[in-house]
Amino acid sequence: MANDHFLEDLTPGLTWTSGSLTVEADAIKSFAADYDRQPFHLDEAAAEATFFRGLAASGWQVAALSMRLLTEGEIPFAWGIVGAGGEITWPRPTRPGDRLTVHTEVLEVTRSKSRPDRGIVTVRNETRNQDGEAVQVLVAKLVVPSREKRPAA
Amino acid sequence: MANDHFLEDLTPGLTWTSGSLTVEADAIKSFAADYDRQPFHLDEAAAEATFFRGLAASGWQVAALSMRLLTEGEIPFAWGIVGAGGEITWPRPTRPGDRLTVHTEVLEVTRSKSRPDRGIVTVRNETRNQDGEAVQVLVAKLVVPSREKRPAA
Repeated sequence: MANDHFLEDLTPGLTWTSGSLTVEADAIKSFAADYDRQPFHLDEAAAEATFFRGLAASGWQVAALSMRLLTEGEIPFAWGIVGAGGEITWPRPTRPGDRLTVHTEVLEVTRSKSRPDRGIVTVRNETRNQDGEAVQVLVAKLVVPSREKRPAA
Repeated sequence: MANDHFLEDLTPGLTWTSGSLTVEADAIKSFAADYDRQPFHLDEAAAEATFFRGLAASGWQVAALSMRLLTEGEIPFAWGIVGAGGEITWPRPTRPGDRLTVHTEVLEVTRSKSRPDRGIVTVRNETRNQDGEAVQVLVAKLVVPSREKRPAA
């Protein structure tokens, strides 16, 4: 992906894979203490009696850790990963000891009509656990510059 | 909102407002060092030359801080804030010194047909800065239990 830095270099179907990291129970509790103080993220015993039936990572921790994996890799966009927004789902919980990897696919590349020096690249980032199951799916719209910086024909 | 804990108690148009917190430059850099190592989140000088033209918080930090504001308030859902997913956008950057507040509105309440002991409540969480401008809009689908736990007619 080294030279795929501009809108013109990105095409639907391109894929890449991040490194991996393991989510430990202590990290789940620590993130929750800072940002998401709910029993199913804070304490194993209390979590048993909840919807999650056991300790689970905050969805926002999964999102933040997925971003860490993406930014630790080689970033194939000239301006970096600049997200305008996206759709996020958590199909299943992230549990203590889960090892996460992000699989990215370019879905769509659209040059801006009003600002032809840039465009929107839609990517699907699927965060999978060690069993290959999706724990998060983020379809994100990224702002990516054009190499040519000219209006489209 | 004290007794609005079940699906039956929630109706479209209900609104509530969180407390507020200030996002300091050090917190922006610290979150970025952990989760989003890009120059526009890490260093004021480096950020000047980027898309953001100055230090800006990671969108995932804004999401996590918004969750903190929501969970610090009185949570009006019996199972807590259990998110199945949502649509997130960041209409403008969050800057050092910004003071954030989350404004929530219930958009839709739908009982599950396959699992009538629960339903999906769609809420719009708008995180606004001290000027009342939206820095994040999250339309989230939350899993909320039914009080009656009976199949719908």
